[in-house]
Amino acid sequence: MKVSDVGEFGLIERIAEILGEDFGDDCAVVEHLEGKILLTVDVLVEDVHFLRRYPPETVGWKAISVNVSDVVGNGGHPRWVLVSLIVPPDLDVSYVEGVYRGIAKACEFYGCKVVGGNMSRGEKIVVDVSLVGDSVKPVGRRGARPGDLLFVSGTLGDARAGLELLLMNRKDYEDFELRLMEKHLRPTARIDYVRHIQKYATASMDVSDGLVADANHLSERSGVRIDIDSSKLPISEDLRKFCRKYGRDPLDYALFGGEDYQVIFTQPETRWNPFMDMTPIGRVSEGSGVYVDGERKEGGHRHF
Amino acid sequence: MKVSDVGEFGLIERIAEILGEDFGDDCAVVEHLEGKILLTVDVLVEDVHFLRRYPPETVGWKAISVNVSDVVGNGGHPRWVLVSLIVPPDLDVSYVEGVYRGIAKACEFYGCKVVGGNMSRGEKIVVDVSLVGDSVKPVGRRGARPGDLLFVSGTLGDARAGLELLLMNRKDYEDFELRLMEKHLRPTARIDYVRHIQKYATASMDVSDGLVADANHLSERSGVRIDIDSSKLPISEDLRKFCRKYGRDPLDYALFGGEDYQVIFTQPETRWNPFMDMTPIGRVSEGSGVYVDGERKEGGHRHF
Repeated sequence: MKVSDVGEFGLIERIAEILGEDFGDDCAVVEHLEGKILLTVDVLVEDVHFLRRYPPETVGWKAISVNVSDVVGNGGHPRWVLVSLIVPPDLDVSYVEGVYRGIAKACEFYGCKVVGGNMSRGEKIVVDVSLVGDSVKPVGRRGARPGDLLFVSGTLGDARAGLELLLMNRKDYEDFELRLMEKHLRPTARIDYVRHIQKYATASMDVSDGLVADANHLSERSGVRIDIDSSKLPISEDLRKFCRKYGRDPLDYALFGGEDYQVIFTQPETRWNPFMDMTPIGRVSEGSGVYVDGERKEGGHRHF
Repeated sequence: MKVSDVGEFGLIERIAEILGEDFGDDCAVVEHLEGKILLTVDVLVEDVHFLRRYPPETVGWKAISVNVSDVVGNGGHPRWVLVSLIVPPDLDVSYVEGVYRGIAKACEFYGCKVVGGNMSRGEKIVVDVSLVGDSVKPVGRRGARPGDLLFVSGTLGDARAGLELLLMNRKDYEDFELRLMEKHLRPTARIDYVRHIQKYATASMDVSDGLVADANHLSERSGVRIDIDSSKLPISEDLRKFCRKYGRDPLDYALFGGEDYQVIFTQPETRWNPFMDMTPIGRVSEGSGVYVDGERKEGGHRHF
């Protein structure tokens, strides 16, 4: 049986059996002395997650951001970064420097620090980043309670549209198209939500695989039903333009597009802060599964 | 300019400039609350560090061991492991399970725990392990003092001989050859030295790049001269047999062979513990550089 036959989640289940551990969450929480440490790792592989023609700075920026997003989604602050880089021997040194400039900028922005790393050769470029964070109160995915509302930060679906535009590999793009591509290339983890999540969220995580896929994770872990109202989904004006131009349905992008690196979280309605870009898009109740406008929805991004 | 032109250390220097950080050591030490945390990452890449035909259990075992070795070399205990795995979609699931069985066995042996990970597809298998350890007293490479002796645990050069035997890819091997190959495939990090290193070593590190290369790291970091007496080098009976059979010089293997994952450390002669397999092989004095029998030696393993 091949890896592609069982898929990412099938493989994770088999591994969990071997390890006798539960590691379904993107971000592990361990205790150290009187505090909690968050641990996460995420990788960017050439030709899988990025192409050689993308600016190397964006690859470095994104490698940090996707990890910070995991920690932020758990109500943690990013602290220490390890960078494991695999590069082909004939790669230009300036490319590697570009990746690290992106890493350095991202670390400065998020307030974390590269403390170590590793360098190896290989055929394809791999940027594997491990991040250690800490939190006075990691939130996790298990605490959603019936009666909570489901909120999402920012807008959804832009990164997926940006990816499609990037793959068109055109010479000229309109301004709104460049902005969408930027959303894919240089996502910003929602570090500005950490305090709010720590204080008010009953469950939270970042949206990396797509809203429906990740809401399903929250629902499973918390043992609750989540109803999403598609009319409430925050969709950017740029994504609407994109969908009009190319004849697409923005809801498809908002529900199933991955890599937005926004956060979703559940909390009582009373904790809605109108000064932040959070939108209530759903409601938690007893039961199981994720429903969009009353219809059960699963799936999302598959890694194999 | 290509990556292969500047080499691993040239690349690290350029990166350190961009990050404005010092990260020459394999193992980073950071402060968390009242304690110290050790962070390290090391990767095994198919066709660079291992071949597909090696037993997958040994790949998993080794991926953990090389990281534990970094932490042990710093006087720390391994605690939490993140495993980032890249696998081709057509890889057999049983291979992945084998890798994880090796990882699980190693973690049980060393007393650490896989708390998270990541899975991605790619053309070649990559096992990238990040390890978080802790230590009441990280030792580092900076404290070697004139008058200290240089000690090494175990024997040196076996892993290199084992690698050469593996690459012969024969059907039949003699028993001592199988033992040497096992040393390459399934190295054991010297977790049994952690307490001694914490208590008595003035500087320490693991031997991964080869004795001369790693002694040079110690010498540079501590700002001292190290004299190694080649007649004292601990060489196994198996390596002697190998060298007689193939007409090689065991000193070459002991001085320059990598991947033994023993520890070298400096300490006062009075701290020599004859019940452990430590051998005094050299002496620290004022000055700089590593000398073997009075002759300056540099270099060792290069990653590009």
